[in-house]
Amino acid sequence: MKRIVLLMEYDGSAYAGFQLQPDLPTIQGELEKALKAIYRTPVRAIPSGRTDAGVHARYQVAHFDPPAELQKFNPKAALNSLLPPDIRIRDFCYREQDFHARYSAKERRYRYLIRLEESALDRERVWQLFRPLDFATLQACAALLPGEHDFTSFCSAQAEVEHKRCMIHHSLWQRNDGQLIYDIHGNRFLHSMVRSLVGTMVEAARGNTGSRDFQRILEAKDRLAGAVSAPPQGLYLMYVAYDPPLEWEKESV
Amino acid sequence: MKRIVLLMEYDGSAYAGFQLQPDLPTIQGELEKALKAIYRTPVRAIPSGRTDAGVHARYQVAHFDPPAELQKFNPKAALNSLLPPDIRIRDFCYREQDFHARYSAKERRYRYLIRLEESALDRERVWQLFRPLDFATLQACAALLPGEHDFTSFCSAQAEVEHKRCMIHHSLWQRNDGQLIYDIHGNRFLHSMVRSLVGTMVEAARGNTGSRDFQRILEAKDRLAGAVSAPPQGLYLMYVAYDPPLEWEKESV
Repeated sequence: MKRIVLLMEYDGSAYAGFQLQPDLPTIQGELEKALKAIYRTPVRAIPSGRTDAGVHARYQVAHFDPPAELQKFNPKAALNSLLPPDIRIRDFCYREQDFHARYSAKERRYRYLIRLEESALDRERVWQLFRPLDFATLQACAALLPGEHDFTSFCSAQAEVEHKRCMIHHSLWQRNDGQLIYDIHGNRFLHSMVRSLVGTMVEAARGNTGSRDFQRILEAKDRLAGAVSAPPQGLYLMYVAYDPPLEWEKESV
Repeated sequence: MKRIVLLMEYDGSAYAGFQLQPDLPTIQGELEKALKAIYRTPVRAIPSGRTDAGVHARYQVAHFDPPAELQKFNPKAALNSLLPPDIRIRDFCYREQDFHARYSAKERRYRYLIRLEESALDRERVWQLFRPLDFATLQACAALLPGEHDFTSFCSAQAEVEHKRCMIHHSLWQRNDGQLIYDIHGNRFLHSMVRSLVGTMVEAARGNTGSRDFQRILEAKDRLAGAVSAPPQGLYLMYVAYDPPLEWEKESV
């Protein structure tokens, strides 16, 4: 039987992250609860990667192996009728067993949003900052990241991984009308890494030493070197790339 | 003493509209509660216009007459420290007594947002529609509105006004990546008028009679002619124009 691949969007505000945790609301917990209601048996869902507590996704990919073939079954409609409104299935497709949401992913893209004034309407979707930041320093820090680096300094103690090298393909700050937008694309990201990078860049942009402190922390490869974390509500998983690309079954059922 | 003019942003989700109502949470109620806490006496706040229950504002203007001159007083900081997080003061300025937030306003601009698929992240900020709409019909309806019209057909029974003629300066639908955006600018708007216009245009765009039904309802000048209302969470007050323009005291205190 073919794997079913889901394209998900979620508002992370109410969840302790993607990964299943006992007694805590999680994205995986809600998704597997809905799958169990459909198939009447436990079904494991595998994401492209875990997102941390409070972090959002506009484009998250997950797969599962259906334990049975259901007639006239549209996974998008079935799951959306069971999931809470802050988790939505945007699309789906079928893949062979050699596809894996995590191991087949070639690139992840994250975006972080900062607002330089208070906002009533966007307060749960951005990091609101009220002190001036030096934009040139943000840009100089971001420019240090493309290429392969050991990100130990920006990785929480919870990360249980073999090595902490990540290849960064793109790292850029933009600004527009009171909003700062940071985009970072890479082959993999460690636990809390994007938030640590953003928090430490912002700290540098508040001081007057330019990107020096940020570079020192990056090169220290030590998680006690002084990285600080930005809050989760400004962070979005924006895209996960596969080769060949996933083609969603939009409007097909 | 000079009037104090406020630039406000609010998330209307939790409120029964701008206007004070007994036993219901309102924007005016929260604002006047904060003003009373500052001045230790009731203070009336006057908006450029009332927004309906659930409607948002990115740019709402209101004024009040301070009953006392306070030392080192920054109205933005003082009010934001007392208001709930879904109501923010973005800026303020001082004007003479001949300025009136409502009567001096020359133009109001509203925007309505529709999403053509379900969204976890924007679910409380847009009207989510899942049936296809004919975009050319939306455009044809919108093109009927510029100029002066009697909007009785699109006005709720609650509107207590002398006449129902409004001069519309701009009325346009745009689409972009699964989102429809409607902008309407005019000298005045009646109770629930924008929501009625949007709901009735969407109804026309679902049928196959083009803009004919919409035009018939407009020309009937009868609130029972068949207008239907769009939900409030997609509607935003975006701008209020004055002549001379208001210049905010940003960063001045």
